[in-house]
Amino acid sequence: MTTPPPAQIGMPLSEVETPALLLELDAFERNLQRMAEAVAGSGLRLRPHAKTHKCAVIAMRQLAHGAVGVCCQKVGEAEAMVLGGVPDVYVSNEIVGERKVARLAALARQARVSTCVDDPAQVAALSAAAQAYGVELPVYVEIDVGANRCGTAPGAPGAALAREVAAAPGLHFAGLQAYHGSAQHLRTQAERAEAVQSAVAKVRETTEALQQAGLPCETVTGAGTGTFVHERDSGVYHELQVGSYIFMDADYGQNLDADGKPVRTFEHSLFVYATVMSRPTPQKVIVDAGLKALAVDAGLPWVPDVPGATFERCSDEHGRIALADGAAGPAIGDKLRLIPGHCDPTVNLHDWYVGIRKGRVEALWPIVARGAGL
Amino acid sequence: MTTPPPAQIGMPLSEVETPALLLELDAFERNLQRMAEAVAGSGLRLRPHAKTHKCAVIAMRQLAHGAVGVCCQKVGEAEAMVLGGVPDVYVSNEIVGERKVARLAALARQARVSTCVDDPAQVAALSAAAQAYGVELPVYVEIDVGANRCGTAPGAPGAALAREVAAAPGLHFAGLQAYHGSAQHLRTQAERAEAVQSAVAKVRETTEALQQAGLPCETVTGAGTGTFVHERDSGVYHELQVGSYIFMDADYGQNLDADGKPVRTFEHSLFVYATVMSRPTPQKVIVDAGLKALAVDAGLPWVPDVPGATFERCSDEHGRIALADGAAGPAIGDKLRLIPGHCDPTVNLHDWYVGIRKGRVEALWPIVARGAGL
Repeated sequence: MTTPPPAQIGMPLSEVETPALLLELDAFERNLQRMAEAVAGSGLRLRPHAKTHKCAVIAMRQLAHGAVGVCCQKVGEAEAMVLGGVPDVYVSNEIVGERKVARLAALARQARVSTCVDDPAQVAALSAAAQAYGVELPVYVEIDVGANRCGTAPGAPGAALAREVAAAPGLHFAGLQAYHGSAQHLRTQAERAEAVQSAVAKVRETTEALQQAGLPCETVTGAGTGTFVHERDSGVYHELQVGSYIFMDADYGQNLDADGKPVRTFEHSLFVYATVMSRPTPQKVIVDAGLKALAVDAGLPWVPDVPGATFERCSDEHGRIALADGAAGPAIGDKLRLIPGHCDPTVNLHDWYVGIRKGRVEALWPIVARGAGL
Repeated sequence: MTTPPPAQIGMPLSEVETPALLLELDAFERNLQRMAEAVAGSGLRLRPHAKTHKCAVIAMRQLAHGAVGVCCQKVGEAEAMVLGGVPDVYVSNEIVGERKVARLAALARQARVSTCVDDPAQVAALSAAAQAYGVELPVYVEIDVGANRCGTAPGAPGAALAREVAAAPGLHFAGLQAYHGSAQHLRTQAERAEAVQSAVAKVRETTEALQQAGLPCETVTGAGTGTFVHERDSGVYHELQVGSYIFMDADYGQNLDADGKPVRTFEHSLFVYATVMSRPTPQKVIVDAGLKALAVDAGLPWVPDVPGATFERCSDEHGRIALADGAAGPAIGDKLRLIPGHCDPTVNLHDWYVGIRKGRVEALWPIVARGAGL
């Protein structure tokens, strides 16, 4: 049930089978370097999100560039990262279910494993498992800072739950999970700055309530690729959970800087490689990558290599690309690169990264946590 | 890199780990039976599309219910079906690339393998591979009957390409591929009937051109779950490629019959099972199934088991469900079923079907062609 890699090391790019997930290694490494530089000297810790790449090889490269560990969303992802050598994994998500909580506690015997809660029911389950496995789990309290998803209300409710964590045997209150997901994709810098300002106010409200309760807040953790400069400069965050910066995608490619120009701090390094399988009309190009190779929830992919080309429809196994009038399009059998609309769920459709440098396959990295939803 | 199954046979449903892909076996078997009845006596052959389920176990059940073989879209799917015991596989798609075409011809030594073309370049590549492997490949000519994707224009262009197929060593001209994909999801029966009428006219135009060219058209193949009654009754189709009827999904659930009521010939048998992981407010339910467990390209899932519940937002690993005012919602740890918006790409996110009957796990079927994009 594991698919074979679509390439062999040493092949020219043009021989890679499609659809394939390409990682342009030079751009990827520049992204690693730029994030390290952006955080250096700030006093903050970098804890990139492994939900983006699901690959232990990439996690270890992030650690080599200064990360203190990684975040995950699922216990299965955390298991894959620890097996792959990551010594410190934070499951930045509420883990519910007896077997999952047991797996989390068991994993904490192999590595530093932390997680978060937003309800007393989760606290009780984690405490029981931590005691059963003889571990102490660092536990964060998630507060809703604007994502409108999980999290307690800021202020007193967050502090009340923190008290329960601190009092629970086997658990250590580690701080606040304060991630503003929807802020990442606000298009203007002013909107993103304002959203993070509002998140920061909610964090402050909660840290003050914690102080009144006599509970120190060691760490405030959050931020994503779209907003991390604001969290970094906020004075309240300690740890950054950026994920997409290593790859970028067409959605992030639409974020604008203070001058209204696309933010280009990080480069597109992730591509879906596709073959032209049909040329039914001069203006129509059909490629062999559809919904099973590309996530379209955040929009259709871009076609960077073909001038005048627009990806206009995605069905299960096909992509339809329209060419501008007069554009000379590719021929049947030609291959082209697509920039996915949304990198995380696109990665989850593939089993291998095909690492490319200077037009040649240099690496094949297994996406070990692909499908690790449990 | 293969994920373990989320259940064990014999477990009660409530113990199945989430997210999991559930198959309600009674409903699934009724769907198999109803399609067999709908085709019986019509003189048409049933060749269900395995791109929907990617599972050899299900393919063999379809054969046991009268199917003559299956369709696939990818060579990797066809390989998985033949390995799983299917003796007759039609790859209803243009296969481009030297290695893929070689694999297709090699597979034709193990089973009856056919495919389709819409360009002379594909004919030449298939002919070379068929000769190299010493096989005769049945090849269909795809005509565009309204899907606006692959396919030659109907009439003379289709007949001209058919002549090239018939003349190519190692290939046998088998007939016409005439699938109207976008017609499947037109909401009213009148719209669907009209779309198929238009497709039928294009098929007729092409079979007449074939007749003038002295080329017999043995088989016209096409149709999907939304329209198959119209192709069945058209007088020009010979083979039906229905896929989704075994599962149904929220998108198909919106198709209307002649009386304007939802078509209920087939039942929803496929569900994503999810756990409530957070209850941040009385009206908000967060479940542990997001974009990596559910395809949302055709709309968000339905929540059939919770009155007044609407699935309103899907992020990578979370689903947000809103409850109507006053609705008593589920608690943290409770599990619920979701009807996916689109079954095919949802299946492709999972490695196992958890077969359920009367609330107990009865079967675990591997999705052997999950991710088989090559």
